Amino acid sequence: MTSLQHVNPTVRGIRVSPQSALEGLAAHITQEITQGAQKPFHRVIDVSSGDPQKTGIKPISFVRQVLSVCMCPQLLKDKNLPLDVKQRAQRLLGACDGESVGSYSPSSGLLHVRECIAQFISRRDAGVPVCKKEIFISSGSQRALMVAVKILASGEGNTRTGVLTPTPCPHSLPMLMDEAGVKQVPYRLTEEPAWALDVSELHRAVKSSRGWCAPRAVYISNPGNPTGHVQDRKSIQEVIQFAAAERLLLLADEVYQDTVRGHHGGFVSYKKVLFEMGKEYSQTVQLISFHSLSNAFMRECGLRAGYMETVNVDPEVTHFIDTMLCTDISTPITGQLALEVMVDPPKPGEPSYCTFTQETLLVQAALSQNAQRACQFLNSLPGVSCQRAMGGIYLYPRLHLPWEFTEQAKVLEVEAQVLYCQKLLKEEGVLIGPGCQPGGTSANHHLRLCVLCPPDTLDEVLARLGSFHRRLMDGSSLCTRDRMDRDESQRSVTQHQWSDIRGGKAGKCLEDPQNWVM
Amino acid sequence: MTSLQHVNPTVRGIRVSPQSALEGLAAHITQEITQGAQKPFHRVIDVSSGDPQKTGIKPISFVRQVLSVCMCPQLLKDKNLPLDVKQRAQRLLGACDGESVGSYSPSSGLLHVRECIAQFISRRDAGVPVCKKEIFISSGSQRALMVAVKILASGEGNTRTGVLTPTPCPHSLPMLMDEAGVKQVPYRLTEEPAWALDVSELHRAVKSSRGWCAPRAVYISNPGNPTGHVQDRKSIQEVIQFAAAERLLLLADEVYQDTVRGHHGGFVSYKKVLFEMGKEYSQTVQLISFHSLSNAFMRECGLRAGYMETVNVDPEVTHFIDTMLCTDISTPITGQLALEVMVDPPKPGEPSYCTFTQETLLVQAALSQNAQRACQFLNSLPGVSCQRAMGGIYLYPRLHLPWEFTEQAKVLEVEAQVLYCQKLLKEEGVLIGPGCQPGGTSANHHLRLCVLCPPDTLDEVLARLGSFHRRLMDGSSLCTRDRMDRDESQRSVTQHQWSDIRGGKAGKCLEDPQNWVM
Repeated sequence: MTSLQHVNPTVRGIRVSPQSALEGLAAHITQEITQGAQKPFHRVIDVSSGDPQKTGIKPISFVRQVLSVCMCPQLLKDKNLPLDVKQRAQRLLGACDGESVGSYSPSSGLLHVRECIAQFISRRDAGVPVCKKEIFISSGSQRALMVAVKILASGEGNTRTGVLTPTPCPHSLPMLMDEAGVKQVPYRLTEEPAWALDVSELHRAVKSSRGWCAPRAVYISNPGNPTGHVQDRKSIQEVIQFAAAERLLLLADEVYQDTVRGHHGGFVSYKKVLFEMGKEYSQTVQLISFHSLSNAFMRECGLRAGYMETVNVDPEVTHFIDTMLCTDISTPITGQLALEVMVDPPKPGEPSYCTFTQETLLVQAALSQNAQRACQFLNSLPGVSCQRAMGGIYLYPRLHLPWEFTEQAKVLEVEAQVLYCQKLLKEEGVLIGPGCQPGGTSANHHLRLCVLCPPDTLDEVLARLGSFHRRLMDGSSLCTRDRMDRDESQRSVTQHQWSDIRGGKAGKCLEDPQNWVM
Repeated sequence: MTSLQHVNPTVRGIRVSPQSALEGLAAHITQEITQGAQKPFHRVIDVSSGDPQKTGIKPISFVRQVLSVCMCPQLLKDKNLPLDVKQRAQRLLGACDGESVGSYSPSSGLLHVRECIAQFISRRDAGVPVCKKEIFISSGSQRALMVAVKILASGEGNTRTGVLTPTPCPHSLPMLMDEAGVKQVPYRLTEEPAWALDVSELHRAVKSSRGWCAPRAVYISNPGNPTGHVQDRKSIQEVIQFAAAERLLLLADEVYQDTVRGHHGGFVSYKKVLFEMGKEYSQTVQLISFHSLSNAFMRECGLRAGYMETVNVDPEVTHFIDTMLCTDISTPITGQLALEVMVDPPKPGEPSYCTFTQETLLVQAALSQNAQRACQFLNSLPGVSCQRAMGGIYLYPRLHLPWEFTEQAKVLEVEAQVLYCQKLLKEEGVLIGPGCQPGGTSANHHLRLCVLCPPDTLDEVLARLGSFHRRLMDGSSLCTRDRMDRDESQRSVTQHQWSDIRGGKAGKCLEDPQNWVM
């Protein structure tokens, strides 16, 4: 018989993100609106998590066309579909058992897709060696990370596995570490400037953990979730040297690798830097890196697929990755096929290349401009400071809240930033995520705002947020919508271009796609 | 740093099914054939696990058409697609955030799909009350079972949670129990007649476990995997009375509920029987039942979705089901949408009803006839005895192997049934699963054979198996293919009808679909 007292203490100890309760509240409000309740807004907008299609960002036509043919192969005869869509679908069906997406795959993923991922990594990293047997496909990077961390979890008390994790961190990370049964050893990122990673903080964190746990790994999010910080080569080298000196496994969460903006030299992978550092490092430092279908340019959250690559990890250990993935039976096949498209998109000259490029670049440009615009807006609000994001899909502004508000939160026994999000949701119908800073001080309040959404949705979010925030700060009911409207003309992706993409009508290349590169 | 000695001892203790290694061997042989190696067979046929599409069973057109439209909504304009396909796709897209399969769903699943599942259960069980909040969607019934069992896992040593599990059991069950961290308490099923469940065995098992673990649940597979046994109402009542007396949570794996054949009164769910037994039971006995998209009539293994329903489980406990599913982020959306079709298929009068019914019934008839034919054939082999399967998709024949063979297995330190499967695979290119009987004696050898495959594939499997088996038993190389060919005429699903379905050409109802009811 199951009663609360018999529930697995590890499960009871899982710190569920406050995000879950907020999502529940958002669903409840939406239901009320559907049932005719009068609200000061006609819909809830959720920009709290990285779920761009939820807010109206359209999927990439090529991948959806390919998957629709894989789902229903009689569409191979459809004369309206581009030739490369049909050829790709045939190739992908050939990689499935029974030529069907309805069959299981091997537990580590379809061999063809693992091969394509290996080729992608090798291309991306200027020819570094990649072994397809060291690629493991799973139902998302979160699941891959869970498997990796769970394998590490051993010991009790001060021999219990510890994992160094950043503060702030992805909101689902504490939950994951708890379920895996490891201790989180926080290291602080430096808010000014731009949430940089200071390696001395890693040294301080690992030193502080001795006697309390056995640190065995360091988790890095680069480009940072939720900070948007992008590490340069030197910073990555320092982390690798640190991991080597402390004999820690490097867990490199690189799911936002294709979102680096501005003039920072672009994304450099941990693996590439590791292999540039010579055999002393490249043959010894253990690295597991993660990538996912849910993020950035592919943004197919609902299909559920991601992968990890292990480097220098003993086959006796990676054997247990297979074991753990075996208990999942199989990763969703459509997600695996979409991964193949992600790592091997249409090439110049192929029928779908033009549309694919246009769709991808236009969304990337919108992301870049949204991030810049929202950052400026947030910094214009009283009591808000926001670092510029060099990559990723979030902004992570800091709130300097009135004393009365934080006192009210204390009385209600809720974090002030969570109370802020609750009130914003109830009063303005906007769901923004509360910050995630385990071990942070109570005066350290942040918000997580996903800016990968249609520009007009962002307008509405910022207007509602501004209105709420000013009321909160000074009791006035000043609405910022007027100012937002005035700013409209500053956006360089025009509403017209955007409507085309959102309506799936984009059929021609923009005149010069280079204009859209971030 | 990760080395073998630091790997999580729970993970190291996971008993991986020998099935995995056999699948690896099968993939290796297939690769050899692709590369031009000469074998006595031209392809490997895998009938070891419940993966019907792998062997050529076609998916149901309606669900694939609906999903292809959901994947690529521009197909809503396609004039060749039936109206109800487009209407269903629109309904399903309306249930997704952002009207896209690319968004996440709430962790327990899309609300609309949970509502449809609740209605399905209520219809199936003659109006029993169902609460949609007690339906939890996950990426398959295996994942749902894992979540349920993991929540139960607590205590150490003789207070460690024990779960009563059948012998034989589904081949993935030991692996799942190990990962969840509970102790398996085996109860034996009675091979003759037909693998019945004897409640006195449950009493014996629970008594034997005292002092060794704390039994908290009993897992039942009905219709049985791999036995094919189907419990009648009286047998289910006895199990419920046992669970009530021993205060055990009932875990009812009912994924093969639509495969009951012959004249046994059909499938009766544990929930229905529970609610027929009066308030003494219906308001107290805790039950979690499982169903899945992978099994039987829907057979969409690769889409990954299933669900569980909790009955009489405290909301304080089910709260942790939500928590655990939260760590999965989201169940694949296409799988969830296919679940909706599974529980609410086309109705009479709708454009797709006829094709849907024909496709479903023809495969059900083939399953029924395959099971009967394979059972007769297996019983005709020397040293093989096979119980008749009343439901499910497997046969589970017993092997009476020559002394020399079992001695050879001992020398090679491999179970004799596993050695049998290895040799069969290498010599004849047929993969059949070894039996799974934890705690069974070494003289107790079985095979697991999935009979949900195209009839001509079954012909080939039985011919190759017969040939191998007779060689093994008497050193002769007698091939049974001739006899198989002679038996061809006995099949009542004609090859012609079958080819139509396999080729996806079935467009008209069979003249009298009633003929095809199992």
